[in-house]
Amino acid sequence: MLKKKGILMVLSGFSGAGKGTLVKALLQKYDSYALSVSMTTRAPREGERDGVEYFFTDRQHFEETVGQNGFIEYASYCGNYYGTPRAYVEEQMAAGRNVILEIEIQGALKVKEKFPESLLIFVTPPSAEELKRRLENRGTETAEAIAQRLARAAEESEGVEAYDYIVVNDDLEACVEEIHRLVEAARCAPVRNTEFINKIREQLQSFSKGVK
Amino acid sequence: MLKKKGILMVLSGFSGAGKGTLVKALLQKYDSYALSVSMTTRAPREGERDGVEYFFTDRQHFEETVGQNGFIEYASYCGNYYGTPRAYVEEQMAAGRNVILEIEIQGALKVKEKFPESLLIFVTPPSAEELKRRLENRGTETAEAIAQRLARAAEESEGVEAYDYIVVNDDLEACVEEIHRLVEAARCAPVRNTEFINKIREQLQSFSKGVK
Repeated sequence: MLKKKGILMVLSGFSGAGKGTLVKALLQKYDSYALSVSMTTRAPREGERDGVEYFFTDRQHFEETVGQNGFIEYASYCGNYYGTPRAYVEEQMAAGRNVILEIEIQGALKVKEKFPESLLIFVTPPSAEELKRRLENRGTETAEAIAQRLARAAEESEGVEAYDYIVVNDDLEACVEEIHRLVEAARCAPVRNTEFINKIREQLQSFSKGVK
Repeated sequence: MLKKKGILMVLSGFSGAGKGTLVKALLQKYDSYALSVSMTTRAPREGERDGVEYFFTDRQHFEETVGQNGFIEYASYCGNYYGTPRAYVEEQMAAGRNVILEIEIQGALKVKEKFPESLLIFVTPPSAEELKRRLENRGTETAEAIAQRLARAAEESEGVEAYDYIVVNDDLEACVEEIHRLVEAARCAPVRNTEFINKIREQLQSFSKGVK
């Protein structure tokens, strides 16, 4: 069975669902994951480092990269480009690593369309109340900003059915384990084993030649 | 998250893939599985016990049961009826057990159509050569019967893509574990969590009322 190539996985979820912490824990716990860093034309915010939060670049370079088919997916958002560089993803997958894309639903759907063998996971808190509580407890945002995040979450919740799996981030450790199990399970999907299936099919056909 | 209801799982696979042994091992190892026993109008073969291999019945009773919507799926095959009694499946699932249907691809597709939340698993030996070897090593069948089984396997292999997962039965213990992991993973699919998703959606919408 072909199990060597890594899985392309998309992790999305409501703002406040704890995606960042989950990704960090997953990378720390297992060697088999690699995080894709997006490229953007937006200016770095305070504390953001090139190559860590994003690869920062200018419009000209971004558009050239688009022209060279250098992105797995890209989108324009609030006047800036955001894209997933192709080379890193392909290298890591070929090396057997599961590549994590932490992107929103629009990007997730584009990835799924281009790569039907990608795995889409949506992270959610145990309830909407809990999401509200977490956003409020951060203490860094105005009531209006929180209300807007919740409105955005309501919009995003419409797209959950497009994901392969939904996981509840209640206990971090349990959630990391669950995501890992989902990725392992995904390796058994027919779409990720076409070579194996075709081979067994051909062999069976050759065996049964001449049988009525 | 709604995780209490059992999963309706279909196990199919080539004759010689070891489905029977797998099912037995799964039932022995975990309390959370129940095996659905099919009903048939064909006569019992030597050693077959009513309620174990099949529930044996006559055409009249079978057709009455069809009329009462008493089967999850049924089919006619070589002049006999075969069906999956509905009551047992529903009782066991409601009790939180994962119900195993060991049926062929035609039945599997019918089940998936009626129950999109069912989980279809296809079991295969590591290779076609290995399948051939296993069939030959049984020593109970003529070369012609083996050739026919292989021809049938070649036909069945055309339908593998309709299954959610394909598992290789190389090492029995590892395969049982893999199937169990797949069933656990399946609990996270959106289709099996519609109540949870709808609830969080409604709550988020109520929170964000009045937000521009």
